[in-house]
Amino acid sequence: MWGGRFASGPDAIMEAINASIGFDQRLAPQDIAGSRAHAAMLAATGILTDRDAEAIREGLLTVLSEIEAGTFRFSTALEDIHMNVESRLGELVGEPAKRLHTARSRNDQVAVDFRLWVRDQCDAAEESLKALQRALLAQAGQGADWVMPGFTHLQSAQPVTWGHHMMAYVEMLGRDRGRFADARRRMNESPLGSAALAGTSFPIDREMTARELGFDRPMANSLDAVSDRDFALEFLGAASICAMHLSRLAEELVIWSTAQFRFVRLSDRFSTGSSIMPQKRNPDAAELVRAKTGRVFGASVALLTIMKGLPLAYSKDMQEDKEQVFDAADSLMLALAATTGMMEDLRPDPEKMRAAAGAGFATATDLADWLVRAKGMPFREAHHVTGSLVAKAEGKGVDLSDLTLNEMREVHDGITEDVFAVLGVDNSVRSRTSYGGTSPERVREQIARWTELLG
Amino acid sequence: MWGGRFASGPDAIMEAINASIGFDQRLAPQDIAGSRAHAAMLAATGILTDRDAEAIREGLLTVLSEIEAGTFRFSTALEDIHMNVESRLGELVGEPAKRLHTARSRNDQVAVDFRLWVRDQCDAAEESLKALQRALLAQAGQGADWVMPGFTHLQSAQPVTWGHHMMAYVEMLGRDRGRFADARRRMNESPLGSAALAGTSFPIDREMTARELGFDRPMANSLDAVSDRDFALEFLGAASICAMHLSRLAEELVIWSTAQFRFVRLSDRFSTGSSIMPQKRNPDAAELVRAKTGRVFGASVALLTIMKGLPLAYSKDMQEDKEQVFDAADSLMLALAATTGMMEDLRPDPEKMRAAAGAGFATATDLADWLVRAKGMPFREAHHVTGSLVAKAEGKGVDLSDLTLNEMREVHDGITEDVFAVLGVDNSVRSRTSYGGTSPERVREQIARWTELLG
Amino acid sequence: MWGGRFASGPDAIMEAINASIGFDQRLAPQDIAGSRAHAAMLAATGILTDRDAEAIREGLLTVLSEIEAGTFRFSTALEDIHMNVESRLGELVGEPAKRLHTARSRNDQVAVDFRLWVRDQCDAAEESLKALQRALLAQAGQGADWVMPGFTHLQSAQPVTWGHHMMAYVEMLGRDRGRFADARRRMNESPLGSAALAGTSFPIDREMTARELGFDRPMANSLDAVSDRDFALEFLGAASICAMHLSRLAEELVIWSTAQFRFVRLSDRFSTGSSIMPQKRNPDAAELVRAKTGRVFGASVALLTIMKGLPLAYSKDMQEDKEQVFDAADSLMLALAATTGMMEDLRPDPEKMRAAAGAGFATATDLADWLVRAKGMPFREAHHVTGSLVAKAEGKGVDLSDLTLNEMREVHDGITEDVFAVLGVDNSVRSRTSYGGTSPERVREQIARWTELLG
Amino acid sequence: MWGGRFASGPDAIMEAINASIGFDQRLAPQDIAGSRAHAAMLAATGILTDRDAEAIREGLLTVLSEIEAGTFRFSTALEDIHMNVESRLGELVGEPAKRLHTARSRNDQVAVDFRLWVRDQCDAAEESLKALQRALLAQAGQGADWVMPGFTHLQSAQPVTWGHHMMAYVEMLGRDRGRFADARRRMNESPLGSAALAGTSFPIDREMTARELGFDRPMANSLDAVSDRDFALEFLGAASICAMHLSRLAEELVIWSTAQFRFVRLSDRFSTGSSIMPQKRNPDAAELVRAKTGRVFGASVALLTIMKGLPLAYSKDMQEDKEQVFDAADSLMLALAATTGMMEDLRPDPEKMRAAAGAGFATATDLADWLVRAKGMPFREAHHVTGSLVAKAEGKGVDLSDLTLNEMREVHDGITEDVFAVLGVDNSVRSRTSYGGTSPERVREQIARWTELLG
Repeated sequence: MWGGRFASGPDAIMEAINASIGFDQRLAPQDIAGSRAHAAMLAATGILTDRDAEAIREGLLTVLSEIEAGTFRFSTALEDIHMNVESRLGELVGEPAKRLHTARSRNDQVAVDFRLWVRDQCDAAEESLKALQRALLAQAGQGADWVMPGFTHLQSAQPVTWGHHMMAYVEMLGRDRGRFADARRRMNESPLGSAALAGTSFPIDREMTARELGFDRPMANSLDAVSDRDFALEFLGAASICAMHLSRLAEELVIWSTAQFRFVRLSDRFSTGSSIMPQKRNPDAAELVRAKTGRVFGASVALLTIMKGLPLAYSKDMQEDKEQVFDAADSLMLALAATTGMMEDLRPDPEKMRAAAGAGFATATDLADWLVRAKGMPFREAHHVTGSLVAKAEGKGVDLSDLTLNEMREVHDGITEDVFAVLGVDNSVRSRTSYGGTSPERVREQIARWTELLG
Repeated sequence: MWGGRFASGPDAIMEAINASIGFDQRLAPQDIAGSRAHAAMLAATGILTDRDAEAIREGLLTVLSEIEAGTFRFSTALEDIHMNVESRLGELVGEPAKRLHTARSRNDQVAVDFRLWVRDQCDAAEESLKALQRALLAQAGQGADWVMPGFTHLQSAQPVTWGHHMMAYVEMLGRDRGRFADARRRMNESPLGSAALAGTSFPIDREMTARELGFDRPMANSLDAVSDRDFALEFLGAASICAMHLSRLAEELVIWSTAQFRFVRLSDRFSTGSSIMPQKRNPDAAELVRAKTGRVFGASVALLTIMKGLPLAYSKDMQEDKEQVFDAADSLMLALAATTGMMEDLRPDPEKMRAAAGAGFATATDLADWLVRAKGMPFREAHHVTGSLVAKAEGKGVDLSDLTLNEMREVHDGITEDVFAVLGVDNSVRSRTSYGGTSPERVREQIARWTELLG
Repeated sequence: MWGGRFASGPDAIMEAINASIGFDQRLAPQDIAGSRAHAAMLAATGILTDRDAEAIREGLLTVLSEIEAGTFRFSTALEDIHMNVESRLGELVGEPAKRLHTARSRNDQVAVDFRLWVRDQCDAAEESLKALQRALLAQAGQGADWVMPGFTHLQSAQPVTWGHHMMAYVEMLGRDRGRFADARRRMNESPLGSAALAGTSFPIDREMTARELGFDRPMANSLDAVSDRDFALEFLGAASICAMHLSRLAEELVIWSTAQFRFVRLSDRFSTGSSIMPQKRNPDAAELVRAKTGRVFGASVALLTIMKGLPLAYSKDMQEDKEQVFDAADSLMLALAATTGMMEDLRPDPEKMRAAAGAGFATATDLADWLVRAKGMPFREAHHVTGSLVAKAEGKGVDLSDLTLNEMREVHDGITEDVFAVLGVDNSVRSRTSYGGTSPERVREQIARWTELLG
Repeated sequence: MWGGRFASGPDAIMEAINASIGFDQRLAPQDIAGSRAHAAMLAATGILTDRDAEAIREGLLTVLSEIEAGTFRFSTALEDIHMNVESRLGELVGEPAKRLHTARSRNDQVAVDFRLWVRDQCDAAEESLKALQRALLAQAGQGADWVMPGFTHLQSAQPVTWGHHMMAYVEMLGRDRGRFADARRRMNESPLGSAALAGTSFPIDREMTARELGFDRPMANSLDAVSDRDFALEFLGAASICAMHLSRLAEELVIWSTAQFRFVRLSDRFSTGSSIMPQKRNPDAAELVRAKTGRVFGASVALLTIMKGLPLAYSKDMQEDKEQVFDAADSLMLALAATTGMMEDLRPDPEKMRAAAGAGFATATDLADWLVRAKGMPFREAHHVTGSLVAKAEGKGVDLSDLTLNEMREVHDGITEDVFAVLGVDNSVRSRTSYGGTSPERVREQIARWTELLG
């Protein structure tokens, strides 16, 4: 009659769809911190006696220790973490527990709990991103002058340095840190004291609870405070961009690990074997980091969809916010840790990279630039001449530097002996000294800057 | 050093990101069915002895019963469900267990397990959708001639019948069933026997394993069989559309339950109260159904993202497919069950709906149509005349049917007494007898058709 | 042979998929600004003669005026805006045009053009958001003390003020402004001078071009500068959250405009009629604002998907970034303008809202709070007593304030005459004087604060 | 005052957000076909005179020819394609034009127009997919026995044949065709005659219009007919999966085209050069195909978001359906055509692929299987022995087939001379003769089957 797997009828279905304790128990530390701050404030403003407040605050610490010890018995009938905690508090301290919910509501409770949790994730992201930056910085440091192909369209375009490539990710992750920091700053206002949606007639002190919970200030509109989840969406937005960045590095690791590239070797710890192909060393960790991206994007889409078109103030739809953010945050932190581990262990092969950098006419641009610089040729003309030289070399099956001066002069008679100085990959990377360029000298400056920034 | 929550170093991180046993244990029944079919086939083709095959098949049943009884000890070190089952099988039956993995690979094992699981979900969706259709049909049956406002833009447009409105959802869900059925049919091919990706040199019989597992046939390309997850994406696509349909009904239930509409009353079993506002009866179940939509969309985006741009054949990214589909399927089944429960219990208020249907000049179209039909007026002119009549009535603060014939004739002198027959809401709905129209007669035909279809 | 609509063979297909001039012509002002800055810098560093640079800079102004006048002939064969502009420049000024592309590449050109365009959109969003905040502020000002139902679950929960509700959106939009401002600040670094990906050997001055284009500084890594599109994704993330906020207000406008609510009346200018139902006034603009949300979310998903797993540096995939951002920005700006127009014209109906606020035991919380405050009852007990009083009133078919003191005392004998002071909606809203609460006094303070902030 | 770019005030904004003629003019042929069918039916049922109907039907043909000739003047003031066509019809034929809109509404008009358009796209997808399958089949045919590495995790796993790899895509695209065909069949019902939402009191013949427009039958519920857009979402779902498939092939083309792989060479027609690096040959078309995936996913998310939570029947939100589907369909058709072009022109390098297939112990599985088959070893043991042999070979820096029999027997003394028969890549692929396996014989059977299916 009920179809599918809900044989037990409406009560079971309602419990299954309605109860949040299965996931929001994760908010226990935040919930208890919020209640402790609330109780202290109720006493300070004379709404509770000091004695009741003290009983509550002590009792809550006991509840927390029970939860941390794993001895707490969560009850689905009590629906959520708030009621589970309050109910146990009642068992522990009696009547004062019934006074705790004065001048507040589950609506502002969940808003404060979740905000505190997401704020913690911003801090965790900051720490994890710094760890990954340090791993990249170490890679950059050891190979500031290793030459590798700089790719566009995955075709060798111009030689770059390994250090330069690593530092590109340090920059991206630096902006990711900025996004998490901005999100944290913006969300760091306290919804507590908004009550159900309208504020309260009790003479509460929202500044005090805000301060105790580390918020910069109370939110200025109680309706807004219980209705919005933009702070969670902003976190998911930052996480999505960060996951995208990680997916690019992961893709490179997968490609660089192929038999065809062999630019790098992942450590055993971050590779796996095969049940049927004994010889395989698979870049599983990199692939999983790449895949986690989908998970983070999905969470973002889910919560945006949930919030679309919801009238104010609280609607039950908003209960679905937490699992999305939990899963995205876990996925991101795991991806960051795995990437850090891979990069710390990674063994690049400078010889392989150098050999690849030299192939494929990768210094053609250097030649064109030389024609402009040394011969005063307009760039578009130099580009054309270089194209003819490449065609000539390609026709002979050799590289640009293997053409003789005479062969080159057949294409353009202004070419002189000193052209050969620009055709080597080392010369190429050394020459690119513009700010932010790939020359080892510039790369080392950036490494120094970031080393200082990372403290 | 590792940042964030992975204090324990690379091994812990790799295990955390790599092991799937935390979620793929859900595939145990499918994994065991697949292995049993495989063993039987290996014996039938002489690759295994009958005795070994029998030991394996029996042993697997024991493993299954241990899992069902909750006594099985899952091991993260064994990574996934396949190795957990095989390892326990080895403990139970010894050497034959080592022969089970002949002529197959984890790649085709996971493909067959997951495909069987998703196929089951298609069946579950079919059952759940039928249950919901029946609940809607019952609502339609009791109110085939109850008049309610038909809305466009949430403005009253024309009167319709409650039965007609309910049957609109029966149609939508009917197409949803069709999508799940098509997805099921398309995915019902067996990947088993594809081995790692290339097939095998053992003389296996893929028709036999396909048959035993209820598949229509083996898949025709082993690379394709282990590489694609389009069957899961098609399921998610059908689930997304279905969830969208449910979200529309849920939105209507929320709106219809407001104090301002009061068209329906949800049962206590699917409503909740408030911790601070004792008088509240909140449509939580409807809101949660609406919100689950986001979750299903998110899963679809996640898996599409994961699969985008993956080279053949298997990549580890694809391990991230399962949790998305598990979560989306659970969310959908729960939403279907909750909606069925709500609709079974729902108490519409025909008086309230009828009163709302009569307000707001809802029969203006009937008047325009009458002018065309009875007076031969071109529709665009009739539309114009009706507009003037509405303006007149609005100016006097009355409804169309409250205008006197004289007042009407001031606007257009061709109007005659029989106009009043078309201005009542009952006449209006009764008149709309075109196929698929809202007249009780047409609605009852559709109810009869669907009652027969639903058996 | 080519299937579908590409009858003309591969060249036509390649042109159709490859050329970007159909959309990137929109970047013409940015492209020309970038080239003018580049030319000036090339002269200042001696790479170009002053005379050539001057010819280029003048010529570019001519090109711009031709584009603005609509006389410019865009050519698909020239693929993109960069080549179209450079080619026309060549016609206008001859050889110097061939020298313009010295020390740069299309990769850094498109990065700088697009970044400038997105930066402009951040500014436009800021202006549009301020305009909408002002419209909301005006609404809040006229109805700071109008009482309306505060909803949770779309059920009347507690009375709030119209001003309070309007100010909730002012807060949300304030955070939206913060997100656009942060995005702008973070993206305001110049990629120009990164050349193809590796920097250049020409002695360019990236600080100078950065300054001329209004950037805070040059980007520190040339590979990063041409490879990333996180600035566009951050814009889309902020736009998605902002669109979500607008969709909530739009939903409220649609619901409030129903015959059942009638809290507000949209102006004719933002409503439409029906081709067949002459009486309809449809909230089309609100519905379209609500729908645009999907468009913005979709653009965000599209670009995240595009960027997922792309190896460094530039890949052609990234050409698909622009149309997504163009469409999302246009949709958002249109939605903001339409919402501003609707809110400026909106005519709320304070009587209707007040009547709705008083129904449904909306002051039950006030009663419970009074029991706590005046009678020292623990909140959970007060909540229980209030529930009994509501049940009694509901049983008699009256509101809480219609119960006699005796009837109340039957439930709890501690209740005294002064209870009636808390049961009216005006008393209720006036009492909620906690910071951020709904009392007119608090709301006016917030209006004053924002009026000052908006200058 | 209006912020941003809408300087011209509310009327301009409303027109900009409300008018659809800018994009729905693309539905002109469908709109005119629908109106012609409607007019013929109105005459057949006596609602219109034959003379009026004939005038209308002829006039509509004139309008169509004007539109096709590009001489039609679309007017934004007339909002949409329906009013533009009807208005012009009025100019051409006078009063009969005013009678055309009898017994219908824009709601069912747009439903029929859009449904016809999407139906056409299903047909176009079918044709384009077949063309691509043929191109892949030709590739498979020429290289049914070319050996290449079969990858998992982008690591060489086992040798496969080029033909097998190509045929994997033929299978995927075959299922894509199935999805479009199912979607087409399900959507092929006529909404025409639903009028605004409730049906009509005119004695219309919906079977007749359905037939004339090629629909299988009229839809059975008028509310459903004007309210749902699941047909468009199902199209987008099928398109998303298809785009995902194309993105995988595109990724492979990009990787296979690298200097490191060189498995294939794209034709000049589908490659481009670089403005600064004259030597580059970039796989632009493949990258753009890969990127279009994001666009299709985005459209799907957009329309799902738009439809989420919309109450019945028509809401203006639904006007946003068309541009999403137009863009996704265009993107998909372009991606299909470009992929077909690339595959037709593609020049694989069998030598390169064969060399890569032989490296990396790719026949280790064959060795393990041989131990099971020839020596009766349990698979798990064989796997272990093979691992030791691989380790030995790796230690000596040679391939498996380079070990001497003695060296092998040091690892396991049961190994005999005939082991060498399984270690070559040709033997390996030839041996995998299980149904769907990679052996040339099996691949040729599949080519024959598909050749017949494709007619």
